[in-house]
Amino acid sequence: MRQKRFFLTESEIPNRWYNITADMQNKPQQMLSPATGKPITEDELAELFSRECSRQELNTTDRWIEIPDEVREKYTYYRSTPLVRAYGLEEALGTPAHIYFKNESVSPVGSHKLNSALAQAYYCKKEGVTNITTETGAGQWGTALAYASKVFGLESAVYQVKISYEQKPYRRSIMQVFGALVTPSPSMSTRAGKDILTKSPNYQGSLGTAISEAVELARMTPGCKYALGSVMSHVTLHQTVIGLEAEKQMEMAGEYPDIVIACFGGGSNFGGLCFPFLRHNLSGKRQTRFIAAEPAACPKLTEGRFEYDYGDEAGYTPLLPMFTLGHDFRPANIHAGGLRYHGAGVIASQLLKDGLIEATDIAQTEAFKAGCLFAEAEGIIPAPESCHAIAACIAEAIKCKEKGEQKTILFCLSGHGLIDMTAYDQFLSGNMTDFKKQ
Amino acid sequence: MRQKRFFLTESEIPNRWYNITADMQNKPQQMLSPATGKPITEDELAELFSRECSRQELNTTDRWIEIPDEVREKYTYYRSTPLVRAYGLEEALGTPAHIYFKNESVSPVGSHKLNSALAQAYYCKKEGVTNITTETGAGQWGTALAYASKVFGLESAVYQVKISYEQKPYRRSIMQVFGALVTPSPSMSTRAGKDILTKSPNYQGSLGTAISEAVELARMTPGCKYALGSVMSHVTLHQTVIGLEAEKQMEMAGEYPDIVIACFGGGSNFGGLCFPFLRHNLSGKRQTRFIAAEPAACPKLTEGRFEYDYGDEAGYTPLLPMFTLGHDFRPANIHAGGLRYHGAGVIASQLLKDGLIEATDIAQTEAFKAGCLFAEAEGIIPAPESCHAIAACIAEAIKCKEKGEQKTILFCLSGHGLIDMTAYDQFLSGNMTDFKKQ
Repeated sequence: MRQKRFFLTESEIPNRWYNITADMQNKPQQMLSPATGKPITEDELAELFSRECSRQELNTTDRWIEIPDEVREKYTYYRSTPLVRAYGLEEALGTPAHIYFKNESVSPVGSHKLNSALAQAYYCKKEGVTNITTETGAGQWGTALAYASKVFGLESAVYQVKISYEQKPYRRSIMQVFGALVTPSPSMSTRAGKDILTKSPNYQGSLGTAISEAVELARMTPGCKYALGSVMSHVTLHQTVIGLEAEKQMEMAGEYPDIVIACFGGGSNFGGLCFPFLRHNLSGKRQTRFIAAEPAACPKLTEGRFEYDYGDEAGYTPLLPMFTLGHDFRPANIHAGGLRYHGAGVIASQLLKDGLIEATDIAQTEAFKAGCLFAEAEGIIPAPESCHAIAACIAEAIKCKEKGEQKTILFCLSGHGLIDMTAYDQFLSGNMTDFKKQ
Repeated sequence: MRQKRFFLTESEIPNRWYNITADMQNKPQQMLSPATGKPITEDELAELFSRECSRQELNTTDRWIEIPDEVREKYTYYRSTPLVRAYGLEEALGTPAHIYFKNESVSPVGSHKLNSALAQAYYCKKEGVTNITTETGAGQWGTALAYASKVFGLESAVYQVKISYEQKPYRRSIMQVFGALVTPSPSMSTRAGKDILTKSPNYQGSLGTAISEAVELARMTPGCKYALGSVMSHVTLHQTVIGLEAEKQMEMAGEYPDIVIACFGGGSNFGGLCFPFLRHNLSGKRQTRFIAAEPAACPKLTEGRFEYDYGDEAGYTPLLPMFTLGHDFRPANIHAGGLRYHGAGVIASQLLKDGLIEATDIAQTEAFKAGCLFAEAEGIIPAPESCHAIAACIAEAIKCKEKGEQKTILFCLSGHGLIDMTAYDQFLSGNMTDFKKQ
């Protein structure tokens, strides 16, 4: 019988993360301090993030970073995640392509986000921090950080983008089961939130705004650090456990991907899956294509500019050299809350600038159409974010069919959509709108 | 590093189901035809169910039943499910007990129900059936049958108990993504539904009523068969893949359970996990305890009578020799919709009568308290049904702590509770009610 799913034993789970910046010829440009205009220092970062994450953020020399035993032990609660051969999807499309997906939706919190949340919470705990704040869009990251905080005995406070807070009440409940304090953003609990609500009382929020609020709360609270779910290089570093596992699992399947695809919000699941494979491009051994699938409503990679910009609405974060739509960009209320972010991580931005990765934009209805086909064929209802990767995968698989090419495609199923059924309802009833950049 | 999860390779996935009736000294009493009062025949059953399921239902001689290759191939989409050592829960309880759970929540549809749905849909397809009807409580079974029908190219119609249809709208959406026609029960689309609504216009439904409606629709529709998600012996037969896997996985872990626990609605996840282990009790090799955890609001095993009764409200089904609260029993609106059923499967009923298994009843708030503790400790939010098994497990683990005994406990995590967050909200806000049998 043909093999459907590939697992690693617990001893084969990676014990090191991969730091791609060590292998990049053109390193990402340095982040700048908003206060001094100079390259940001570890000490400045450590005012906001844990010391170890600050160190990792600026490390562009060590190729491999050890995964602490305590984190790796918690990884075994759900890792390795399965690499799955999508026979069902291949058959539905009638494509000669071999399609694989790395199923990060099986994590306790339903997405890849836990890979970094556990690391960040662990470092905070080790450094004597007692409280963590963060922001969340669809709620995937907030859920992950809430659970990771519970695991390592920290208090967590989560600002959730208001549109998602309202569209996805179940995720709020899940965060609360894990003991988090959840506040819809913009809120009146911070200066940043008040400023925005004063100008636009009905504003439905964005990741940029929620970040401002979480950062402000962290700065005002003793013993409190801030944790970010994407964008930053240390977050993507933690996510490379996805690609490192997938590399071993593809080897078990006897294949190597020609094309690797992931959805793109800030870039953490994209970098997490792609960078370990990309290192073989950088060393000249492979010529794999890497495709970032972003929403047409928030097309920073395909339509943004590469420039220094803030990571948040209010301008609290360092200035990041990245593809951006502007830190005051207000994305339409698409269901893929995790992709509603104005900028791209600095590593992915540099790689795109250098032509080492590609980007494609996907309309909302195209994403959900792909998601429904995938659900029927593979039995898993994908997160709205992941639907974008699936749509991009299907487009490539259809090209393979048209050209009669048997390529191997790997994509990241970053999360499941079980908490996003109102979005599917809307799609199935024909009431879903396509948004373009506003 | 201590091992957390145990998997089988795809070739180790069982290729036979275990038919415990072949090993029972006291076989279950025969089901009676409501028309003739005589033991029901295969032909009579086959008016309702697929021919193969009807055959399996009456087979009390063949110990092993082959799993068709087509079904086994679809099992590989999610099986083996992990056997997990609950280190987190053990530490939270401070118990010397070794706790394991078989995690059926990782199935595409979020519960063990798919194990039988795939088999039943396959047999229907093979026999030329075009449509399947069924009932569902919380929606776990309906979701499974909707997906299985899609897999094998059948149309499905699902009657969902009204209270669950309203409490859990996401499950309806999931069924619709898989192409099912979903109707809240009682409905005006059947005589059985109309009769009940005429008497009690506000009745919130029960599994017994929904079964009546689904059976009636199947009887009235050419090319249509009925599929049941629990209670019947052939359903439990299909579920034994759970216990057969768990047996091999416990061997990998180097242990054998002293106590095996599952929640109990009609008995399918209970029998599925327990019967393969129980066979070693029947042969005299082991003395494992088996505990069925039922809700205090619907205590057929602990307070019901053993007698012939109908499986449904209207009296369409065969008369079953079972522990029952009466087929007109109307359970309180607890959140564990899958446990709101008046009767117990005939095999489990006979085993309980003969003292070969035990039963315990769990109050609703006790179940959710256990579920929250489990979520914090293991990161998985359990289905309200599964919370009952967890509560029973915790009670046994605490006894171990009090007595200083290092027993090995295995329970079935029959499903996840991600679609049941309104119930958790109610529990966390202190607004949950405990129901007793009314």
